[in-house]
Amino acid sequence: MSATEPTQSPYLVDFDGGFDIRRVPTHPGRAAVDGDACERTLDENVDALRDYQRLLYADDRYSVLLIFQAMDAAGKDSTIRAVLSGVNPAGFQVSNFKRPSDEELDHDFLWRSARRLPERGRIGVFNRSYYEEVLVVRVHPRILHGQRIPGGAADEALWAQRFASIRSHEEHLARNGTVIRKFFLHVSKDEQRERFLDRIDKPHKNWKFSEDDLAERDHWERYMAAYQEALRETSRPWAPWYAIPADSKKFMRAAVAGILRDTFAALPLRYPELDDEVRERLPEIRRRLDADG
Amino acid sequence: MSATEPTQSPYLVDFDGGFDIRRVPTHPGRAAVDGDACERTLDENVDALRDYQRLLYADDRYSVLLIFQAMDAAGKDSTIRAVLSGVNPAGFQVSNFKRPSDEELDHDFLWRSARRLPERGRIGVFNRSYYEEVLVVRVHPRILHGQRIPGGAADEALWAQRFASIRSHEEHLARNGTVIRKFFLHVSKDEQRERFLDRIDKPHKNWKFSEDDLAERDHWERYMAAYQEALRETSRPWAPWYAIPADSKKFMRAAVAGILRDTFAALPLRYPELDDEVRERLPEIRRRLDADG
Repeated sequence: MSATEPTQSPYLVDFDGGFDIRRVPTHPGRAAVDGDACERTLDENVDALRDYQRLLYADDRYSVLLIFQAMDAAGKDSTIRAVLSGVNPAGFQVSNFKRPSDEELDHDFLWRSARRLPERGRIGVFNRSYYEEVLVVRVHPRILHGQRIPGGAADEALWAQRFASIRSHEEHLARNGTVIRKFFLHVSKDEQRERFLDRIDKPHKNWKFSEDDLAERDHWERYMAAYQEALRETSRPWAPWYAIPADSKKFMRAAVAGILRDTFAALPLRYPELDDEVRERLPEIRRRLDADG
Repeated sequence: MSATEPTQSPYLVDFDGGFDIRRVPTHPGRAAVDGDACERTLDENVDALRDYQRLLYADDRYSVLLIFQAMDAAGKDSTIRAVLSGVNPAGFQVSNFKRPSDEELDHDFLWRSARRLPERGRIGVFNRSYYEEVLVVRVHPRILHGQRIPGGAADEALWAQRFASIRSHEEHLARNGTVIRKFFLHVSKDEQRERFLDRIDKPHKNWKFSEDDLAERDHWERYMAAYQEALRETSRPWAPWYAIPADSKKFMRAAVAGILRDTFAALPLRYPELDDEVRERLPEIRRRLDADG
């Protein structure tokens, strides 16, 4: 296990498997959404993240992996953009996992994302991830046929094995210095309808609309069941899930940035110190550089 | 777990953790080494492997991962060459894992080999592997400093965690269609000396000799202890180790090829069948092609 404790938050998903998705709010409540206050909080957190990222890079021991999963139109893209807007682009990489390629399907389901894991000192963001393998694939088990897994019928054992694989993978990464934080952006079905309508009504948002997304709405309950089980089975101290209310975008962005900031604050990051031998020689090195001028 | 059972062999390493490296022969015994008979066996097995590889490719559900570990001069390279000499080069890939690059060191210790895992339908060979992380790194724990793992002192817990990571990784791969077979080519210290002397005496073999290899001889007992524990901790039904006597190269090659052949023979491989609809249309397709002539 990593030396780092999971960042506390009211939205942290319990590790005991008791997570009940119906009890999780999609809206933080009217009192929590003072839009201006949320924007100020976001700005402060983004400023802090900029400094922490520099420290993460200099310290060069930890990497940070952020995983975002959500129903369509919950705001994954815009949240990632807002939260990481201040960070040096050289220090992080966002990977989008859409439909896998043939080469990717020819490997185990962790292979394609494993190649995109962040290096020490960097932040990696997975916009969707291997969790799709226990979400969309669970809702549409026919996708498994394309995966050509030996004996790969979609029985309960398969999902249990996938959860076990994911837990082991994340525990291994955490032990080796990857700090993992996972965000489920929890939007309501009503709010999603509003946002879809917005995409249809506003010409500059038309490109975001797809009839496929509409079809997935019909499977809402099955998606919620799949999310609930995935979060129950894989929220662990070394790789916690946070179920963030997503019906207010401003609140959601501030909340995600706050959890990130607290995560960095808890890491034992430090700027490396010169060793004594080199430090003692610094005056001499300076003299040589001076003489070289 | 994979549907495939571990291939039986007198050299299969027990799964119960009782493996005792001092009891494992480095030489198969005089009776077992009729050189001509070994060569005939090798040839037959190589022929069989050629056919199996075509079937593996057509079936397109399983991949085969072969891992080779050994002390220097045990004959890894020549065994890989001899055993896979007949196989279509397009259907397999040999990956050599030497000193890791900076980019590789910036990831967890499974990352660099995970990227080179074989696709479905193919054979992947690891000439050395992530097992170096519990072998050479265990004998020379100072290597850990370069890995910059948080809290990465070389205590017993670290090795236990690495074994756990390896077991989970291999079990995950096996569940998803990778058939794993691991070979420890077990050479004696005396035979290694003979082969080193040979490299020194024969000019065309000089390039293979390195003084570093000689230095590792001084750590022989510690290497044997590291191998013993690694094989105990990671020989499992879904990823068995075979400890092959390596003092006779001809015997070793025939033995490895035999285990591979038996592994393929036990897999439920089949050429895909056309579905009925297409088959019914074949006469019509033929007519169209004829008319096109």
